[in-house]
Order: sequence, then C-alpha cells, then structure tokens
Amino acid sequence: MGAPPGYRPSAWVHLLHQLPRADFQLRPVPSGFAPQEQEYQQALLLVAALAGLGLGLSLIFIAVYLIRFCCCRPPEPPGAKSPPPGGGCVTWSCIAALLVGCAGIGIGFYGNSETSDGVSQLSSALLHANHTLSAIDHLVLETVERLGEAVRTELTSLEEVLAQRTELVAAARGARQQAEAVTQQLQGLAFWRGVPLSPLQVAEDVSFVEEYRWLAYVLLLLLELLVCLFTLLGLAKQSKWLVIVMAVMSLLVLVLSWGSMGLEAATAVGLSDFCSSPDTYILNLTEEETGLDSDILNYYFLCNQAVSNPFQQRLTLSQRALANIHSQLQGLEREAVPQFPDAQKPLLSLEETLNVTEGNFHQLVALLHCRGLHKDYGAALRGLCEDALEGLLLLLLFSLLSAGALATALCSLPRAWALFPPSDDYDDTDDDDPFNPQESKRFVQWQSSI
Amino acid sequence: MGAPPGYRPSAWVHLLHQLPRADFQLRPVPSGFAPQEQEYQQALLLVAALAGLGLGLSLIFIAVYLIRFCCCRPPEPPGAKSPPPGGGCVTWSCIAALLVGCAGIGIGFYGNSETSDGVSQLSSALLHANHTLSAIDHLVLETVERLGEAVRTELTSLEEVLAQRTELVAAARGARQQAEAVTQQLQGLAFWRGVPLSPLQVAEDVSFVEEYRWLAYVLLLLLELLVCLFTLLGLAKQSKWLVIVMAVMSLLVLVLSWGSMGLEAATAVGLSDFCSSPDTYILNLTEEETGLDSDILNYYFLCNQAVSNPFQQRLTLSQRALANIHSQLQGLEREAVPQFPDAQKPLLSLEETLNVTEGNFHQLVALLHCRGLHKDYGAALRGLCEDALEGLLLLLLFSLLSAGALATALCSLPRAWALFPPSDDYDDTDDDDPFNPQESKRFVQWQSSI
Repeated sequence: MGAPPGYRPSAWVHLLHQLPRADFQLRPVPSGFAPQEQEYQQALLLVAALAGLGLGLSLIFIAVYLIRFCCCRPPEPPGAKSPPPGGGCVTWSCIAALLVGCAGIGIGFYGNSETSDGVSQLSSALLHANHTLSAIDHLVLETVERLGEAVRTELTSLEEVLAQRTELVAAARGARQQAEAVTQQLQGLAFWRGVPLSPLQVAEDVSFVEEYRWLAYVLLLLLELLVCLFTLLGLAKQSKWLVIVMAVMSLLVLVLSWGSMGLEAATAVGLSDFCSSPDTYILNLTEEETGLDSDILNYYFLCNQAVSNPFQQRLTLSQRALANIHSQLQGLEREAVPQFPDAQKPLLSLEETLNVTEGNFHQLVALLHCRGLHKDYGAALRGLCEDALEGLLLLLLFSLLSAGALATALCSLPRAWALFPPSDDYDDTDDDDPFNPQESKRFVQWQSSI
Repeated sequence: MGAPPGYRPSAWVHLLHQLPRADFQLRPVPSGFAPQEQEYQQALLLVAALAGLGLGLSLIFIAVYLIRFCCCRPPEPPGAKSPPPGGGCVTWSCIAALLVGCAGIGIGFYGNSETSDGVSQLSSALLHANHTLSAIDHLVLETVERLGEAVRTELTSLEEVLAQRTELVAAARGARQQAEAVTQQLQGLAFWRGVPLSPLQVAEDVSFVEEYRWLAYVLLLLLELLVCLFTLLGLAKQSKWLVIVMAVMSLLVLVLSWGSMGLEAATAVGLSDFCSSPDTYILNLTEEETGLDSDILNYYFLCNQAVSNPFQQRLTLSQRALANIHSQLQGLEREAVPQFPDAQKPLLSLEETLNVTEGNFHQLVALLHCRGLHKDYGAALRGLCEDALEGLLLLLLFSLLSAGALATALCSLPRAWALFPPSDDYDDTDDDDPFNPQESKRFVQWQSSI
C-alpha cells in the first residue's frame, strides 16, 4: 500500500494543455511548461495579445457603429416628431446587456474567492511542509544534544565508577562508541539544514501577491457593479449626464476587462502546462534551488513503491546502535550494580535518556517518511491546479461576459440617450413606472380635460 | 515540536454557541453538544420552531395586508378613472423585492457550494484516515507473514545445516525466538483490525446524504429563480394569469424558504455546539463505537506532547528484537559460513527478509504516528466547522432574504395587478419600454391627430 491517490490533472488542465501554442513568428511551440525559454514566453504573450486584439476589434466595432448611428441616420419625415422605431428594443437590449454584466459580476466574485481558496490551500500546504522540515531539524538537534550530554556526564561518571574492572569499562566504552555512531547517523538525517530555500518564505510571498490580486479583482468587480447599477439608474431616471458619465466609465471598464482577460488567459494556459505534469519541473527547480540529492527529492515528490527511502540505511544503523546500547546497559546493570552500587544512578539516567531517544527516533522516522510531505505536495498541487485554475476560468468567463455586455451597452447607450426627451422637465422624474401604461392613459385624460 | 496548529473554533462558532437555548418549558438548557439528551433535542426543535413562528407571522401579516387592501379601499371619487396614487411605487417595490430575492439566490448558490465543499473535505479526510488504517493492517499482515515464512523455511533449513554444532543451533534458535517475539509485538499494532466502525462507510454515508441535500437546495434555488424571473416577466408583460400563478408559486416558495430556514438554524446551532469543543464528544462516541482503549484514541485525537505514544513499548521491543536478530545473523555468518557453506544461502535470504522487515517497520512507525491521522481529524473538523458552517450561514441568509423578498412581493403583487388595465387588449403588449415616456407622447400625438 503506497501513498493514497494524490493529485491528478483535471479535464480543464487537459483541455487547455491541448490548445496549440505559437511564438511571435507563428511557429508551433511545444506545450511543456518551460517559463525560462523564450519561445514559451512568446507563446504566452501571444495568448495575452489575443485579448488586446479583441479589445481593438470591439473598440473599432463600437466606433463604427456609433459613427454610422450619428452620421447616417435616415432623414426624418418633416413634421413627424415621433422617435425612431425600435426605441424600446434599444433600451431593453441595453438593460439585458447590463443584467448579463451583473450575472458576470456574480460569477467573477465566485471565481475570485475560488482562486483565493486555491492559493491559500497552496500556502497552507507550504506552511505545513515547513513545519515538518523544521520539526525534523529541531528533533535531530534535540536528540543529538541529549545524547551528547549523556555521553559527557553519565557515561563518564560510570566509567570512573567502574574504573577497577576493565571489562566493564570496555562495555561502557562500547556504549559510548554506539552513542557517538547514533549521533553521527542522526545528524545526517537533518537534510534540510542549511538549505537556502524556505517554504515559509515562499508561502509568505505567495500570500502577499495573492492578497493584492484578490483586492484588485474585488475593486474591478465593484467598479463594474457600480457602473452597471448607475447606468440602469441613469436609464430609469433618464438622466443624460449620468448616462454620459457611465458611458465613459463603461469604456474604461471595457479596457480593464479585456486587459484582465489577457492576463487570465495567459496564466490559465501556463498553469495548465504546469499542471499537466508538475513533477519533473518541480523536481528540477527544487534540485537547483536546494542542491539536495535527487534521490531525496524523488522520494518526497513521487513517494511510490518504486522509490526507496534514502534514509533507510541511516535509520536502520541508528536503530541497531540504539538496541546495542540498550543491551550493553542491561549487561552493565546485571554485572556492575551488585558490585558498584554507585553505578546505579548513572545507569538509570542513561536508560531514561535511551528511552527518550528511542521515542524521538520513532517520531523522526514518522516525520522523515514521505507520506506527510508528499501529502502536502499533493494538497499544494490540488489547490493550484484545481481550485485556483477553476477560479481563473470563472474569472475568464466574467471578463468575457462583462466585455460583451459593456460593448453592447456602449453601442446601445447613445441610442437610448437619443430617445430621452430633449427638455429638462423630464429629467429626474421620480414616479415613472416601468410597466404602467396607465401613465399614458392619465396623460390622455389630462389632455382631453384641457 | 508537536503537531502543527490544527482546528480552532471560528468566531461564528463562538457567536452561535453563546446564544441562549431553552427546552419546551422554556427552562434554560446548557449549550454543550448532547444530541442524545431530550432537553437538548427540545432546544434544537425550539430553534426550528422559531422559523415556523416566523412563517405564521408573515402569513398573517400578508393576509391582513391583502384583506385591508381588498376590503378597506378608500372610495374612489365618482367619474375619476385614474388609478390610485403610488401605483408606480408599488410596482417598483415589487421589482426591488424580486431583485433582492435574486441577490439572495446568488448568495444561496454560493452557500450551497461552500457547504458541499466543507462536507466533501470531511469525507475525503475520512477516506484518507481509512486508507491509513487499512495500510497499517495490511503492512502488519504482510510483515508477519513474511517473517513467519522465513522462520518456517530458512531458519529451519539453517538449523538442519548447523545441526552438528549445538552452540550455532542455539544462536539460530535465539533468532527464531526473537522473530516470534517481533511477530507477536507487530500483531498488537494492528489496532483497527476487527473494529466495527469503518471510516469508509461513514464517508460514503455522509457523501450520500450530502448529494441529496445539495440537489434539494439547487432545486429550491432554481425554483425561486424561476418564480422571480417569471414574476418580473409577468409584471413587464402585464399578464394577469402569469402574475396570479406566480403569486401562488411565491406562497409555496415562501413556505419552503421558512422551512429550510428552520432546518438551517437548528443545524447551525447544533453544529456550533459540536464545533466549540468537538474532542470530548468525538472521543466518547468513538470509544463507544469501536471499543478501543482510551489511550489510543486520546493519542490520535489530541496528538500533543502530553499524550505519549501507546505503541511506544511495542515499537521499542520490536526494534530491539530486530536488532538482536541482526546481530545473531551476523554472528552466524562469521562463525558458521566458513565451516558450513550450505548455510550461506538461507543466511543471505534471512538477512534480506530482515532488511525488508526493517523497512516495513519504519513505514509502520510512520503510519502509527499520530501526525497523519490527527491531520485528517483536523481537516475533517475544518471542513465541517469552517466551510460547511459558513455555507450553512450563507444559506440561512439566503432563506432570510428570500422570505423577506417573497413576503414583500406577495403584498405588492395584488396591488400591482390591480393597476393592470382591465381589458384584454393590453395583455401581451410586446413593445412596452420601461423607461420611455415617449410612449405617452406618442399616444398624445395619436390622440390629437384623430
């Protein structure tokens, strides 16, 4: 029974990973994750540039539409003051577009929180891994110090007590040698000591960046929500200046939406390449950053039955040495204590130290086993490649919906605006009822009464 | 260094836990989680009954409002056919209520997915714990079988080869005794064997219930969304039959909302009591269900430095016995192989078995350590008490918003309906523009032209 099933690339990862990539000369680029290579960087930039192209096209479309609307209006029949037909349709399409934008904002809030969840899962896994690594260091240090102290004090006084009988002194010397061997073996187990890469630092950096990303999206979402609501208010109250201000704001948010869409698309594509086979990349990167042996890294990152525990030898040797110390101490207790009662105190103290060391040793075996650290690795990958990627795709959907909705609104707003009554007395009418044709009836009654 | 910081009750848990509870005689009930006690059950039922009270009050309020509206209308001045004043206000308030309902539905979807996330975290933690427990069983079984096989075949053939020299046979017998001691100690480590409680079964049950809960909420949310959208459509198209059908549906959804609110409130209160100090309850429950020693359960559920490893003694004894077997085999290799070359093959095979057993032993130490299982326990608690509780509170907010919105809509709908034109020719007008008073102008122009 190996480790429980860990991370598996999701369908989204496969789908995004299979999209074709090209560099600036439009030559195909392999979709393996290689952020240091220029072609790959160019492929991601090209994905982001697609959003720029979309922005340009939608701006051109809006401009052409509005120019055509302003300059190529069909000549009105003289004397007919009725508004152009289809006015209701224009306003309704504007409202529908803004409602789609609002639904997109809801999706955006959900996606933003999902991404944030995924990244916080990543950083909590890093924190947990850091805890395990520092616990190994701490435990090794504590055990080595405790053993060294026992060797310096109790074993020395034991040797002094037993100085008269050389074979007992030899047994004590044997225990000393075994204890020194254990110390040496244990020190080799603190594999993360002096490694320049700190998971804690990485987790803090990730959280820092994520905090600002989250805040930026919340601000963008709130801005778009305000634009949608105030545009609706402007339409409802037929306030020309509000509609004009909101049209300008819509243009700004449209640019921001396309910009965020470019970033999201490039990140999602890069993330899918990373997530389709993360092990190799992470292994190479960690080997470069930490300078650790590849068998240690393989053990923790793969953690299957094909990879043997690189600490097995050291653990077995320490275990045997500890058992030897125990049998030597037992022999001494049997032989020496009846003759030298003074030997009892250091012997009991040594046995207690041995018990504590054996307990620490078991804890160390548990900490060093790949299970715990590999589970953190799996949790980090799941956070990044499942939750964060899903959130990113939802944010992409939000950007797409809001870009479409804002472009439609920008096309419709000036037409709806043109339908507003030209005089000021219709501005800020408070009691307009959207669904009440009684309004017109009342008007007729008022007309016929005068 | 103990386990990393695990589950801590959140602020919501503290807040809900501090609410006063009372039984049916309104005597105060302590807020410790005790689902088997009648007073506590009564307290939870009383919380759920509060929602029933709310439903009753809101139904009475709606009924009184509508009766007052129908029967106590101010007498219209004769000849004046204008609608009662404030008609626009009524329709607008109905629309605003429905929009609040839609926002509530968005919150409901988010809460439902959050609850589902929390519960799936709980069941994946249970699955992981099940994997660890069955891995311990499996590993113990495998190791014991392998050792038994080695004792039966290799050690027996070794004893036969060495039969001429009794002191070597005695060493082989010693190794056999130690191997049997290891077997015995290891068998005591498979503590979950024969335990009637299966985390896998619990996880499957939890997932099964959660699947239906999730589906029921999605259906409720979709029903309410449809009611909101069709009511808006009915208002926009001034379709009387649609408004009537939707008013009846609103009444149904209002009842469902209050019902779900009662369930959510009782569950949230009960969950907060459980989550404020889960250890004691879970410890007692698991002790009852499994019949395991309390020191084993304490070790896994608390996993701090105050609780010692209950397997420490067995592990140390096994470790010492393994080291003794190793030194006896080494002695035999030194002494016997030069004289009896036939002894080499079983000795090498025995040493290999010993190496594998030591590897398995280290894996077993890692699996038995409280770290892994306690981490699963923490993840399960976090899933239930953080994500699921938060989701439940969001669902509560949804129920509250939708109950308020539907009650307002139910009060406003008949008033808005009364404002609809009485004849059929206004039904299904397609081109009504909510924000276009040009409609009335056009009407006036048409009037003056005839």
